[in-house]
Amino acid sequence: MEGESIVQVKDLLKEKIRQEGRVVSDDVLKVDAFLNHQIDPILMLKIGEEFTSRFSGCEITKVLTVEASGIAVALMTGLCLKVPVVFAKKKQPSTMGEEIYCGKVRSFTREEVVQIVVDGNYLGPDDKVLIIDDFLASGEAAKGLLKIVEQAGASLVGIGTVIEKVFQSGGNSLRKQGIRVESLIKIGSLANGEVEFLN
Amino acid sequence: MEGESIVQVKDLLKEKIRQEGRVVSDDVLKVDAFLNHQIDPILMLKIGEEFTSRFSGCEITKVLTVEASGIAVALMTGLCLKVPVVFAKKKQPSTMGEEIYCGKVRSFTREEVVQIVVDGNYLGPDDKVLIIDDFLASGEAAKGLLKIVEQAGASLVGIGTVIEKVFQSGGNSLRKQGIRVESLIKIGSLANGEVEFLN
Repeated sequence: MEGESIVQVKDLLKEKIRQEGRVVSDDVLKVDAFLNHQIDPILMLKIGEEFTSRFSGCEITKVLTVEASGIAVALMTGLCLKVPVVFAKKKQPSTMGEEIYCGKVRSFTREEVVQIVVDGNYLGPDDKVLIIDDFLASGEAAKGLLKIVEQAGASLVGIGTVIEKVFQSGGNSLRKQGIRVESLIKIGSLANGEVEFLN
Repeated sequence: MEGESIVQVKDLLKEKIRQEGRVVSDDVLKVDAFLNHQIDPILMLKIGEEFTSRFSGCEITKVLTVEASGIAVALMTGLCLKVPVVFAKKKQPSTMGEEIYCGKVRSFTREEVVQIVVDGNYLGPDDKVLIIDDFLASGEAAKGLLKIVEQAGASLVGIGTVIEKVFQSGGNSLRKQGIRVESLIKIGSLANGEVEFLN
C-alpha cells in the first residue's frame, strides 16, 4: 500500500508538471498553477501524507518551513503528522519576542539576500524538526532553516521537498553532510525547454 | 449539528486566545503561537470546515487570500470546499505572467504600503470568490483583495476571517457596502491588556 501511494503522488505531480508547469529558463520551472501561487489543496494533502509516510517513526515534533511558498506543503504535512508547523518570516514583525533565531537566504530568482527569522518561543532543544519546502535548488533556503534549527538547539530529522532540481546540486550537498533529504520529484535538467525527470 | 460545530470552533479559538494570545497594545493581539507564525494544523482544519459550512451553497470556485499569514486558513478552507486557493503575492516574481491584477495594502503594524499581485491566469470572470484571511482590522488587506477580484471581473461571495477587531471598523465598513463578512471571533476591545469578546 505504501509503495502504491508513493507511485501515485509522484505520478500526479509529474502529470501536473507536464500539463501546467512551464520551463521559463534553463534554471526555472514555473509551477504556480498548483504549487506556489494557485494551490491545489487536495494534491497538497496527498503530498503531506507522502512525507508523513516517508518520515514515519521519526517522532517529529515540529515542521519548519519558510514563508510563503513552503507554507501549504508544510501545513498539510503537519496536519498528517499531527504536529505544529512553524514558518520562518522574511521580515521581523514588530510584535516578535526578544529571543529570535535567524538565517540568511539568497534568492536567485529575485537576486537578493533576505534574513529569515523564527521566534525563540516556537523551537527549542526538545524539538525534532522536519524541514519542508516546495523547491530544493541550490539549497539556500534549506541552509537558512538549518541555521535556525541549530540556533534553537533542536534536532534535525530531515528535509522534505516537493521538487528537487538536482542539477543545481543543493540536495546532494546536503546529503553529503549526512542530512536525510527526501524529494518527491527529481529533475535532472530543464535545458531546451524540456523537463527531464530522474525518478 | 451545524450550530454545535460553530460553538466548538469559536470556543476552541477563544480558549487558544486566552491561553496563548498576548495583548501587545490597545490595537495588537499577538496570536502567533497558533495562527500566523506557529500554526496549529488541526485547528486550521476545523476553521476551514467552519467557513465551508457558513458559505455552503454559494458555489465558490476559488479561495483568495494574501501571503503569508492568510495561507494556512485559506488552504484548509479550499481543502474542505474542494476548490483551488490563490494567494496574492507581496512582490511580483520575475516569472509571473504578463496580465496581472493588483491592489494596495497598508500595513499598520509595519507602517508601510505594499502592492499585492495575482497572476491573471488564476482568476477570471467565471470565478466565484471567497476571500479568507486571519485578521480583519481596518480592512486594508480585504480592500486590496477586493480590488483584485474586481479587476478579474470575478464575483465576490464574501469574506471569511478568523479574528475581527471590531473596534478597528474595517468589517462594518465592508458590511455597509453590502459585502457578506463572516468572522469566527469578534473582539470589541483590547484596552488595558484585556481581550473583550463580542460573540
